[in-house]
Amino acid sequence: MKKIRLYTPGPCQTPEDVLVEMARPFEHHRTEWFKGLMQDATAKLKQVFQTENDVLVITGSGTAAAEGALIGCNPPGSKLLTIEGGKFGQRWGIIAEQFGLDVVRHEVEWGEAVDPQVVADYLKNDPAITCVMLTHSETSTATLCDLEAIGKVTNEHGKLLIADCITSIGALPVFPDKWGVDVAITGSQKSLMLPPGLAFVSVSERAWRTIEANASQHTYYLNLNQARKAAAKFDTPYTPAHVMVRGLCKALEMLLEEGMENVWKRVAAMAEATRRAGEAIGLKVFSKRPSDSVTAFNAPDGVSVADIRAQLQERFGIQSAGGQDRLKGKIFRIGHMGYLDALDAVAAVAALEQVLYRLGHKFELGAGVTAAQKVLAERL
Amino acid sequence: MKKIRLYTPGPCQTPEDVLVEMARPFEHHRTEWFKGLMQDATAKLKQVFQTENDVLVITGSGTAAAEGALIGCNPPGSKLLTIEGGKFGQRWGIIAEQFGLDVVRHEVEWGEAVDPQVVADYLKNDPAITCVMLTHSETSTATLCDLEAIGKVTNEHGKLLIADCITSIGALPVFPDKWGVDVAITGSQKSLMLPPGLAFVSVSERAWRTIEANASQHTYYLNLNQARKAAAKFDTPYTPAHVMVRGLCKALEMLLEEGMENVWKRVAAMAEATRRAGEAIGLKVFSKRPSDSVTAFNAPDGVSVADIRAQLQERFGIQSAGGQDRLKGKIFRIGHMGYLDALDAVAAVAALEQVLYRLGHKFELGAGVTAAQKVLAERL
Repeated sequence: MKKIRLYTPGPCQTPEDVLVEMARPFEHHRTEWFKGLMQDATAKLKQVFQTENDVLVITGSGTAAAEGALIGCNPPGSKLLTIEGGKFGQRWGIIAEQFGLDVVRHEVEWGEAVDPQVVADYLKNDPAITCVMLTHSETSTATLCDLEAIGKVTNEHGKLLIADCITSIGALPVFPDKWGVDVAITGSQKSLMLPPGLAFVSVSERAWRTIEANASQHTYYLNLNQARKAAAKFDTPYTPAHVMVRGLCKALEMLLEEGMENVWKRVAAMAEATRRAGEAIGLKVFSKRPSDSVTAFNAPDGVSVADIRAQLQERFGIQSAGGQDRLKGKIFRIGHMGYLDALDAVAAVAALEQVLYRLGHKFELGAGVTAAQKVLAERL
Repeated sequence: MKKIRLYTPGPCQTPEDVLVEMARPFEHHRTEWFKGLMQDATAKLKQVFQTENDVLVITGSGTAAAEGALIGCNPPGSKLLTIEGGKFGQRWGIIAEQFGLDVVRHEVEWGEAVDPQVVADYLKNDPAITCVMLTHSETSTATLCDLEAIGKVTNEHGKLLIADCITSIGALPVFPDKWGVDVAITGSQKSLMLPPGLAFVSVSERAWRTIEANASQHTYYLNLNQARKAAAKFDTPYTPAHVMVRGLCKALEMLLEEGMENVWKRVAAMAEATRRAGEAIGLKVFSKRPSDSVTAFNAPDGVSVADIRAQLQERFGIQSAGGQDRLKGKIFRIGHMGYLDALDAVAAVAALEQVLYRLGHKFELGAGVTAAQKVLAERL
């Protein structure tokens, strides 16, 4: 027997009901049937996004949606601040540079979060900056920044804020409207419990004014204006992965049935249980400001990340993530998003104990699961 | 009881086995498992594409792949000839213009195919043109052009040729290498018998030389260089719709098991049967050079396209396509691609007879199915 247990920070496990929904015979996408799906999906997406803004559906990865947002919100010649504390933050700077924007790339030590005051200083000292782009939950370092405080800063300065919320929306409390996030992005394969293939973008009225006025958009496929026009009729400008939209309706229904506050509570409890368990068995959390959607542990002394991950996979079918780039071989990551519950969190800790035990790491067997139990029993 | 019968020229019907394959629990995409799928898929794609060139997998629609190809093959400032005899041909000109290319847009009467000599004249009279883009099977008018002859022309002039083969590859004989097509594009939801969500691009070595030397590519997500680098390791640069790649392996296996020549024969026979049936019941084929992947009929006098399509849908669950743009209300289209066989062709003709009969069109009931039978019995 070999179970697949996806604890990667995307793709995340997809409920069987969603997969079955996607396997049903389908119709054409220019039909009332598909419009009905889109209407349902967008209404529910707004609830999951906690926004009254438009939420657009893009066939492509989160990177595709981020590219569309960057191009739309930053007309040629404009100046953009990117906050880069990991691999994804870096990517947004790279894209912006590729499009010839005037990019100020602010680097943050990996595993740390940007101080909102730093953003304020940039905006104060350089009024030419019209937009800030950052990653809310930086998946590569499992680090969360204070999006609410940063939104306050960008709003005070009258600047646009694009947030990559790819591993926060649907897992952690995010309030784009309350926090003044103009563009928020996520992907299907994260907390929305779908396979990869779709991305979602919420856009504020303020951002639309810039996007609409931006004539020379260097994209056709990822043009948000076109997506908005089509979305007004519950449609998409180009052929959508409509089978996934059907799965999306089902997945969103499941999330909303649980209630977003309960989802956030579940994810937070799983993350806290995992961190406490790690502590109890001598694992150090890598991030100084950990995100609840994914936990990164440093490999303990004398044990290699590769061995931990290989054994998790071989013995228990657990797919985890390693470190990327400069963190390769240094950290391993366990996700808490998607179709995972309290007992899945316990299972991950149990597997980790067994693997570390076999690899010769010294700790008290059972201390991890005990620590996890205490958190979960208290909080859920 | 309500059967869904997709005769639209994309999305096409997907075999149950493919849908079930996509519903299986999945793993992460940065794994040997996914590399194995990609290796399998790309080897089979080459056979379906009839090419030795790289075939890349893009998560997005055919338009996304076409945009990537247009940007890659046409460095800023270069001159491009687009051949436009329908809605899709037009789109490639619009995209090229949006990217500021110097575009010569050659219009062809809708329903007619470009004369290869016209392409030759353009290239002879305007040596600045470095690339030609056209649509092989123009879905909006159900018209096929002579890609082989045009490839001969572009090759004689040493120009790049990008062909939108979205509704030809996998349905009709297309030989990119023999015909000198540098870039050939198709989408998952057409003859490849999948839901929408993936697109595929073959790229010749000659085209790679232009694409690689083209530094200022106005795209990150659709950058073919990045896709090629990843593909060399059976990977993708950004998160792929990997569940669809799994379905793709299954669908390609089915096509290759039938044998591409048999697939082409089946599609051609279905198209011919449908055209002959139409003739027998007083329907006029719209195109002067019909494609075998989709047939467009003019609405007969006194009968509206809307009524025909609505009744096909309501009474038989048949989803057909109408006309787009200037052809709206004038034609309706029945596809022959995908998971459709000889009996499905007969069924479509039978439905059409019954619908036209009810709508008061005068013809001999049974003449259509009889005509179809004669073609199919002879040819398959």
